[in-house]
This record gives sequence, structure tokens and C-alpha cells, in this order.
Amino acid sequence: MSNILAINAGSSSLKFQLIRMPEEVVEAKGLTERIGLSGTEFTFEMGDKEAKNVIDLSDHETAVKHLLDKLTSSGVIQSMDDVDAVGHRVVHGGERFSDSAVINDDVIRNIEDVSDLAPLHNPANLTGIRAFREKLPGVPMVAVFDTAFHQTMPEKSYLYSLPYEYYEQYGIRKYGFHGTSHKYVSRRAAQLLGIPLEQLRLISCHLGNGASIAAIDKGQSIDTSMGFTPLAGITMGTRSGDIDPALIPFIMEKTGKTAEDVVHILNKKSGMLALSGFSSDLRDIEQQADKNDRAELALDVFAARIHKYLGSYAARMSGVDAIIFTAGVGENSTVVREKVLTGLEFMGVYWDSSRNDIRGQEAFINYPHSPVKVLVIPTNEEVVIARDTVRLTGQD
Amino acid sequence: MSNILAINAGSSSLKFQLIRMPEEVVEAKGLTERIGLSGTEFTFEMGDKEAKNVIDLSDHETAVKHLLDKLTSSGVIQSMDDVDAVGHRVVHGGERFSDSAVINDDVIRNIEDVSDLAPLHNPANLTGIRAFREKLPGVPMVAVFDTAFHQTMPEKSYLYSLPYEYYEQYGIRKYGFHGTSHKYVSRRAAQLLGIPLEQLRLISCHLGNGASIAAIDKGQSIDTSMGFTPLAGITMGTRSGDIDPALIPFIMEKTGKTAEDVVHILNKKSGMLALSGFSSDLRDIEQQADKNDRAELALDVFAARIHKYLGSYAARMSGVDAIIFTAGVGENSTVVREKVLTGLEFMGVYWDSSRNDIRGQEAFINYPHSPVKVLVIPTNEEVVIARDTVRLTGQD
Repeated sequence: MSNILAINAGSSSLKFQLIRMPEEVVEAKGLTERIGLSGTEFTFEMGDKEAKNVIDLSDHETAVKHLLDKLTSSGVIQSMDDVDAVGHRVVHGGERFSDSAVINDDVIRNIEDVSDLAPLHNPANLTGIRAFREKLPGVPMVAVFDTAFHQTMPEKSYLYSLPYEYYEQYGIRKYGFHGTSHKYVSRRAAQLLGIPLEQLRLISCHLGNGASIAAIDKGQSIDTSMGFTPLAGITMGTRSGDIDPALIPFIMEKTGKTAEDVVHILNKKSGMLALSGFSSDLRDIEQQADKNDRAELALDVFAARIHKYLGSYAARMSGVDAIIFTAGVGENSTVVREKVLTGLEFMGVYWDSSRNDIRGQEAFINYPHSPVKVLVIPTNEEVVIARDTVRLTGQD
Repeated sequence: MSNILAINAGSSSLKFQLIRMPEEVVEAKGLTERIGLSGTEFTFEMGDKEAKNVIDLSDHETAVKHLLDKLTSSGVIQSMDDVDAVGHRVVHGGERFSDSAVINDDVIRNIEDVSDLAPLHNPANLTGIRAFREKLPGVPMVAVFDTAFHQTMPEKSYLYSLPYEYYEQYGIRKYGFHGTSHKYVSRRAAQLLGIPLEQLRLISCHLGNGASIAAIDKGQSIDTSMGFTPLAGITMGTRSGDIDPALIPFIMEKTGKTAEDVVHILNKKSGMLALSGFSSDLRDIEQQADKNDRAELALDVFAARIHKYLGSYAARMSGVDAIIFTAGVGENSTVVREKVLTGLEFMGVYWDSSRNDIRGQEAFINYPHSPVKVLVIPTNEEVVIARDTVRLTGQD
């Protein structure tokens, strides 16, 4: 038995779960926000109790210390020594990491080396790693990369049709993200289907505020919709997904903005927010869809893009055995699943509307006779972090 | 009976066919290149005779006069009066033109108005139109737009997930191109299949140096791979097709180039040329494929992108009745068709390798029992120009 901390550190935030392994029981979880800003907010959940404090925490080290103190004082653990290992989410592992890795100085250097591929995320993730190394010296730690699961993609999937030296010199290629989630739901789907992963062709739809789709053949990612960055692919909450790249200089010329500014708009002010004109949150949009044309349009565009990916990735694997919906929208939106799935009988998808009215729970929503199964599976990235941490540090 | 000139004017070129209608017989065809530059080259074909002259022609008007003189002196026509109407290819019709249009001052103004959407092409097309109006006053003329066929796309296909005002203010949306070709082959496919267009779901693959794919439902384009410009979509001879838009500022920063420069590279130095490292011409690449890894890679990337579009557009139409290959590569490349079609049995495509070894001729390459038919159809944009010109000017 071991206690694993699964950590996701942002530039001013620290999300955690303390998971008891191998039982995979969440003993406590929470979130520290506004670290280094005035009025840090600390949320702590244990069982069905939730507490929220406002407190000043000047940096990640202080926040880590506060978290460990709280874990001890609340009785979740007896002392800091009861934390057996820490798993850290790291956004970008470049081509160096095709699996999670035990953190040492060399691994940290490698994460720094690819920081220009994820300039907002990797430095923040490293801040969290360094704070825990300071406060828990000697405790083994593991880095779990969003990109690692997609490193099995073949060249024909990950290479852009760009000058080859851009790949060699600058690492320009498709990396893909949400790997931890795609990995979790694909493994869980195999269990639920009762079929070995090695015999399955899966399409995993991780639909949250960020959204990506992965083609998973025999358990390995062979293609995914996000690209060099998480901007690419389908329409998302505030992200455009793919557009004609020639639009960037055109928009620059029309608006007087820089390329950076335009890409900022593509990341932060596009997607469902731009289409609907009022919200990036699919729940708001669904509520308005029957009385607001732009809300309906946003929903239609979003669903149409996903729908097309299902055909595309079925073609990529010469057919598909199961389609998985996960993350906030995928787990909860009956409407999106309906729009996405309608009209796929030609490829063997027969979904059952009477089973589709479910939220946030594991379920099959296909007719029993459907050659292609359709599953809703709540994702659990933290448990993958805990599992990889146990696997690589030998805790159990 | 009427003689129709089908014209495609570039900034320094003038391509023509003289077509006798309604028989659709090409009486003469040819090309003037390097207009306004030293050593204009004039190529003229009549029956199986071809002649090439080098001559100085200072502008499009002189080139038009030279062409008309040649048509008369060669005996193809008796006098200029025998040209009954002229059809002009125009690249961009914006949202104004969903069909070809009889050219008048208002139409010319409209073509000028959307010139910022096709700054290289529309002004050149207009130069050709003006030169013919000058030399053949009173002869009716028709503009045939590359974009018009795709104007039937619904909003959910043509809208990007970008701030809505970009659409309203700047006309930013998917327009699509190669419409004249997609229109021709879809009509011809219906004839060859003996099924009314209104009952068909077609995917048309126009694969040349530029390449685009269209989903054609009941005869109408409902989606296409090119976008705001012809850069978007699949890998092409020198064009990248879709990439993560965030790559543009990244490449700018790494290379010190402007956004315009980067998009120039995406248009002119990417695609098959960049992947293979030696040629944008698929014939060269095919020849090297078994001895050169990068040539094989280029071929694999190109085919994989098209293959995925077939699945995607089948999903878009809830299935597909026939797939069409056209243009230089589509009509001639046995290898590309093989790679594109392999592994689509799940959606009803059973192609016959013994029928696939054909070049530049109309053929079915599916097994007779295949639910989805696969056709090779040489495209003929000029005959669509001639047909539309006859239809709209009442010549016959």
C-alpha cells in the first residue's frame, strides 16, 4: 500500500489528489489558486467534506508546504513521510519522452529543453516539481507527459508537409495532447468491452474546454487531432482548431495585429465563444440552442467537426470497433453525442437514444447489435499519474 | 452551332480553347506565355498539329489580337465574327456568385470587389476580360468562377470558428476552389453510373499540383478541403495544406521571417516538394519511391491525407455512393489511387487492382459488387466554361 500525490502545477495554481494505491482510492484532493497573487484560494476535499480558505501563499514552495501541513493536520496522513511518491503532470515531453519518467536532474533538463514547445506550461510544471523536491527530498517523483502517449504515431501522421529541416532543426511536428486521458479511457474501454486492447481499434473523443480526438490502434495512438500545439484540430471552447493558415497574414493586414496577437485570438477568443457570441461553455450554449441561431450554429459546427473526425479515423484504421466519449462535454452532453453519432450507420454505428441520456457515468450507448460499440467513460488523468508513479518507482 | 472561346488568363499568360458547341468539339487550343516579358511564347494546336512561336507581345490586348489573327489565318474561323461568345475562368467570385454570370460592368465591379480575396488571380483574370471586350466588342461573355460551385455549402461547413465579425466584415470563410472541375466530374459520374445526380452522394478528388476534395450531395457541394484560399486542405505539390496555425508565429520567431514570407513558403516550398526534398511532381516522386525513403514518405503522407478525407466526407453525407478521381494525379497515378483506396472496405469500397492500371481515361475501378463505385474521370474545365457560356448567352 502506498500514498501517491498526483500533482498538476500551473503558473499560479497547484492541483492535487492523494491516491491510495493499489486500491486507487482518492483520500483527499484539492486546488490552490492565485499563488503569488493576493488572496490565494485553497480548496481541500476529503470524503464528502470540502473546505475553502483564502490565505496568502507567496510561491509554489509555500503552497506545497501548506498542502503537506494540511494533509497531516487533517489526519489524511500521519506525517510527511507517509507520502511515498509524487507524480507530476508535465504538458510537453517533446520526442524525448514516450513514457512517463522518474524525475532526476537529467529529466528536468530535458523538460527545460522542450520548454519552447510549451512556453506557458512546462516552466509552470517545473516550478511544481522543484517545490516538491525542496519540501520532500528523497521522495521519488515521476513526470507524466501529455504528449507521451502519442509518441507511437507513425511519421505519416506526425510530419507536416513543411520543409523537412523545420522538423529536424526546430522540432516542428504533430505532438498531440490529452495523452493521459486518451490512454486511460482506451484501457478502460478494453476492460468494459472484455476484449484485449491489442485487438481493438478505438476512437477516443476527449471533449472538454480543450478537445482532441485520437485514433488508437491496438492500444497505441496512431493519429490525433491536436498538433504542434493544442490549438489545432476541432473547434473548442475558445480555440479555433484548424483554419486556412493563409488567414493569419490576411487578418493581420485587415486588423493591424501581429501574428502573435492573431494566434492569441485563435486560442482565446475563437471557437464556441466566437461562434455563439456569448459563451465558451457548452452548457450555456445548449440552453440557448432552441432560441438563438448562433448558439445552434456553434453546436452544429462543433458536432460536425467531431463527426467528420470519426469518419476520418475510421478510415485511418480501416474501421473502428468502439468510439469513446470522455471529459466534461463528452461525459455529460447528450445533445453533442447525439449530433456527433447521427448518420454513421454506414460505418456500423447504431446508437440508442434511450441509453444516451446519461451524465458522468460509464455506459454503453449503442444498441447491443451495433458492430461498433459506443462508450461514455469519465476520464481520470490522476489515476494514470498514480499508476505510472507506482509502476516506475516500485511503490506498491 | 456556335464557336465558344474558353479563356483562362493569368498575369502573363493566356490559355484558350475554341470549342464548337453543342458538339463540344475542340477546334483549336493553345497558350500564350510570358506576355509583356521578352520572348512571348505562343503555342497553337489544331487537330494533331502543334506550332510554337516566339514573338514579342507587350500586353494582353496584343496577345488577344494575335490569337484572333491566328484563329482566322489558320482557317479555324473565317473571321472574328465567327467567335459567338467568350467564357472566362475567374478564380474568385466571393459570396456574390453562386453560378456563372454574363459579364457586364456590374459583374466586373463585383469581380474587382473580391480581388483582395484572390489578389494574384482576379486582377489577372480581369486583364483577360478587358482585352477581349476591347477586341471583340459586342460579343457576349461569361465569367465562370472556381468558387461558385461551392456556394451551396451550408454555414456549418463554410464558417470558421473565428470571431463572427471576421466573416461579416472581411468575408473570412471557406470558399473552396476547383469548383468547375468538381462540377464537371460529378455530372459525368452521374451519367456513367446511370443514376440521377439527385440520388447520389459523391466524393470528388481533384488531385493535380493543386488538389482538393469535395463532398457532393445530390449534385451540390456541401463541403470541400480547400478554404479561404487554395492553401488549405490536403498536402499538394508545393502547398502544405492544413497545419497547426500556431506554427506561423513559431516559424517566424525561429527564422526571422514575416508572416507573409512564411505563408509564401507554405504555398511554394512545402507539400510534396518539401517532404520528398527533390520534386513537387508526383511522377518524379513515384519513380524514386522504392529507393528513396523521403520519396516514399511524401507519397504516404499525400495518400494518407486523401484517405482520411474519404472517411470524413463519407461521414459528412452518412455514406457515399461513388468516389471520383480526376486531374493529373487522380487520372494517372495507379499508385496514389491504390494507397488512397486500400482499407475502405468498412465503408463499402471494394476496388479492383486489375482495373486500376489505367491512365487518363474514363473507367470504373471497383469490383462490380462494390456498394461504393470508384471512377476515374478526366476533368474538362473548358467544356464547363463553354457549356455555361452557351447556357447563359443563349448561343446554340
